[in-house]
Amino acid sequence: MAFDPATLKYDAQGLIPAIAQDAESGEILMMAWMNAESVSRTLDTARVTYWSRSRQAFWVKGESSGNLQHLVDLRVDCDRDCLLVLVRQEGPACHTNRRSCFYTAVRDGEEVELMTPEAG
Amino acid sequence: MAFDPATLKYDAQGLIPAIAQDAESGEILMMAWMNAESVSRTLDTARVTYWSRSRQAFWVKGESSGNLQHLVDLRVDCDRDCLLVLVRQEGPACHTNRRSCFYTAVRDGEEVELMTPEAG
Repeated sequence: MAFDPATLKYDAQGLIPAIAQDAESGEILMMAWMNAESVSRTLDTARVTYWSRSRQAFWVKGESSGNLQHLVDLRVDCDRDCLLVLVRQEGPACHTNRRSCFYTAVRDGEEVELMTPEAG
Repeated sequence: MAFDPATLKYDAQGLIPAIAQDAESGEILMMAWMNAESVSRTLDTARVTYWSRSRQAFWVKGESSGNLQHLVDLRVDCDRDCLLVLVRQEGPACHTNRRSCFYTAVRDGEEVELMTPEAG
């Protein structure tokens, strides 16, 4: 069946959450939001393109930092209201310069930092 | 630092997205939503507990199906507005009886089904 981004389920702001996973290691790198046009651009360019809610603008991941996300595979969930993008990530995915945004764990009621920023 | 679920960033409905990942294989199983009380219950019981938006009720994953999610580790992202739960999943995570909800891929403009339902 031909894929049409309009068939996905978007929230009241026209957005759908997109989880980015390292295609090779399986590590979860980040979660951000896409609108229908971001989904199309991601598929057309193979550069993962989110919608920045703070800037209200398209956000080609890594466009300014150089830490691009190259699309390897795009997955849709059963409810069609969440996306999984398997990517080849250049450099760190997190704006704190860590590999992943999920660098804090909760263990025995305490927050524990699992990763340190990569050397610039 | 002691972890307090109230310090997470929830949306206008008081919810935060939670990504469930198989702790052993790294496979992404599903994405659902939690409120502050679901986060507390998940940590207290080690059974992953979402908030069902359709039923407007707590949803102990697998409570009726038996396909429980046992919490292995809880992670918080840099913006504190998304959670990652590493789990030990009993049975399939998806209500379609597939291991993961992300069983559809978009390849060359077509939707491709990657997984079939497990035998009941």
